[in-house]
Amino acid sequence: MIERVAIIGTGLIGASIGLALKSLEEDSRIEVLGWDSKASELTRAVEIGAVDKALDANDVYDPDVADVFVLATPVLPIMDWMERLAPVLGEGRLVTDVGSTKREIVERARRLFNQPGRARFLAGHPMAGKESGGAGLAEAGLFRGAAWLFTSIEGPQSSQRTDIEQEWIGLVERFGARVMELGAERHDEVCAWVSHLPQMLSTALAALLEETFAGDPEGMAAVQAIGGRALRETTRLGSSPYSMWRDVAMTNAEPIAEAIAALEQRLQHVRENLRTPELREEFRTANRFREKR
Amino acid sequence: MIERVAIIGTGLIGASIGLALKSLEEDSRIEVLGWDSKASELTRAVEIGAVDKALDANDVYDPDVADVFVLATPVLPIMDWMERLAPVLGEGRLVTDVGSTKREIVERARRLFNQPGRARFLAGHPMAGKESGGAGLAEAGLFRGAAWLFTSIEGPQSSQRTDIEQEWIGLVERFGARVMELGAERHDEVCAWVSHLPQMLSTALAALLEETFAGDPEGMAAVQAIGGRALRETTRLGSSPYSMWRDVAMTNAEPIAEAIAALEQRLQHVRENLRTPELREEFRTANRFREKR
Repeated sequence: MIERVAIIGTGLIGASIGLALKSLEEDSRIEVLGWDSKASELTRAVEIGAVDKALDANDVYDPDVADVFVLATPVLPIMDWMERLAPVLGEGRLVTDVGSTKREIVERARRLFNQPGRARFLAGHPMAGKESGGAGLAEAGLFRGAAWLFTSIEGPQSSQRTDIEQEWIGLVERFGARVMELGAERHDEVCAWVSHLPQMLSTALAALLEETFAGDPEGMAAVQAIGGRALRETTRLGSSPYSMWRDVAMTNAEPIAEAIAALEQRLQHVRENLRTPELREEFRTANRFREKR
Repeated sequence: MIERVAIIGTGLIGASIGLALKSLEEDSRIEVLGWDSKASELTRAVEIGAVDKALDANDVYDPDVADVFVLATPVLPIMDWMERLAPVLGEGRLVTDVGSTKREIVERARRLFNQPGRARFLAGHPMAGKESGGAGLAEAGLFRGAAWLFTSIEGPQSSQRTDIEQEWIGLVERFGARVMELGAERHDEVCAWVSHLPQMLSTALAALLEETFAGDPEGMAAVQAIGGRALRETTRLGSSPYSMWRDVAMTNAEPIAEAIAALEQRLQHVRENLRTPELREEFRTANRFREKR
């Protein structure tokens, strides 16, 4: 039975997991421990009740501090934590993560975990977030209705979910998330299209507008005053912090680059056909995609 | 005093104008007449109370049918209606429109209206809409908080707003819209950035996803299941109908093409810098744009 959960990284996602755990009726007995590299984030997570007890950095290496260790930092520090925790946590412990890319994390997990004397690793990815981070924006209901992907770590010992993995997945379902299983390669490919491409696109569009109207304050005022929902939605992710996306770009560069290149070509096609019937085909194809939703 | 308003084109925008007029407390005395090329749209507009009385096509050419004629069709039919109404409506009448592009409309207005014996023309553009059209989606509050742009028609007779123009602008303010004045060239340039580019981008992205996963039903299912708010918002306008956007593309092709070309270059820049510190600059520039909002 999971009695204590240690959340490493108590920003938006980590603190929302803490709040979701504390809001489970039967399981509010679960004690949530937390650590963050920023003291202010950790303090905030405690203040909002997402974390019962703040940990010191050294406490995290105590195998008895928790049953489940949730790595809720950007992807590169997740991998650093995997390296540090693997030698100290023994069997019976579960390490899980919420990283936005999975291929490199799963490769590392295969090497470090899920073998005799070592803890289990369950690679996870909740498809939830906001354009701004931080514990201050955390919500117990952040994962309600969102997909929460788990990617399997192939290998002789890991073909079946252990009890503690199943228990964690059960908690995630009770957060209101839609649990799905997906291979790590497929995960990174699909996420390049549905998450990373929209992010890069939104960043590129917002940056382009910023520079286009940099020397034209009257034009920028008009852009801001006139822009409605279309502009707001397509540039919203322009607020996203580099600190998180750097790691996504680093660990999924090829699929993202392919998706961006394909969009460049598609935009060129639209641009060259603004006055031709080909534009109708493009709208119809787009309409078909939307009708599926 | 405006007593009767004839709305030509009772789709989403036209019917919302009708509802907004009927919801004005003091002015609910204003009679709203309507015509649409689709009988079903007109019937719907009458059913929801956006139009008091449906007109026959011939009625529209009766100069006594209304004080204000609102052209609420796509841009090309707006220009056709301008040609047809100019010879039959005399002084004292106001023709206004809601077209998404203004340069070609204003050129035509200068030739056809605002001269002795002819009606006035007030070029307008409410920055409101939805990804789907039709009277069935109309709302009295559609324009609340939205910009409603008016572009001046230069010429000796038209430097000042006449009484009936001022009265119409007053009604628009009472719809809750933020009235702004903008030159027609500037309007089309700014709208290319804040409205037409987001539209073409969203259409291109939705069409690209549709074709990329066309032969991969499992992948498409994953795209649909996994995609969250980021995908939903960046592809939402992919539902927009070609019938409206064809005219926007036709009448503002050069500014739209320039904006698309600039975005292609920007995406290429992001793509080539996924693993370099240049990506941080791009995120910071995008962050600056968003901080202004």
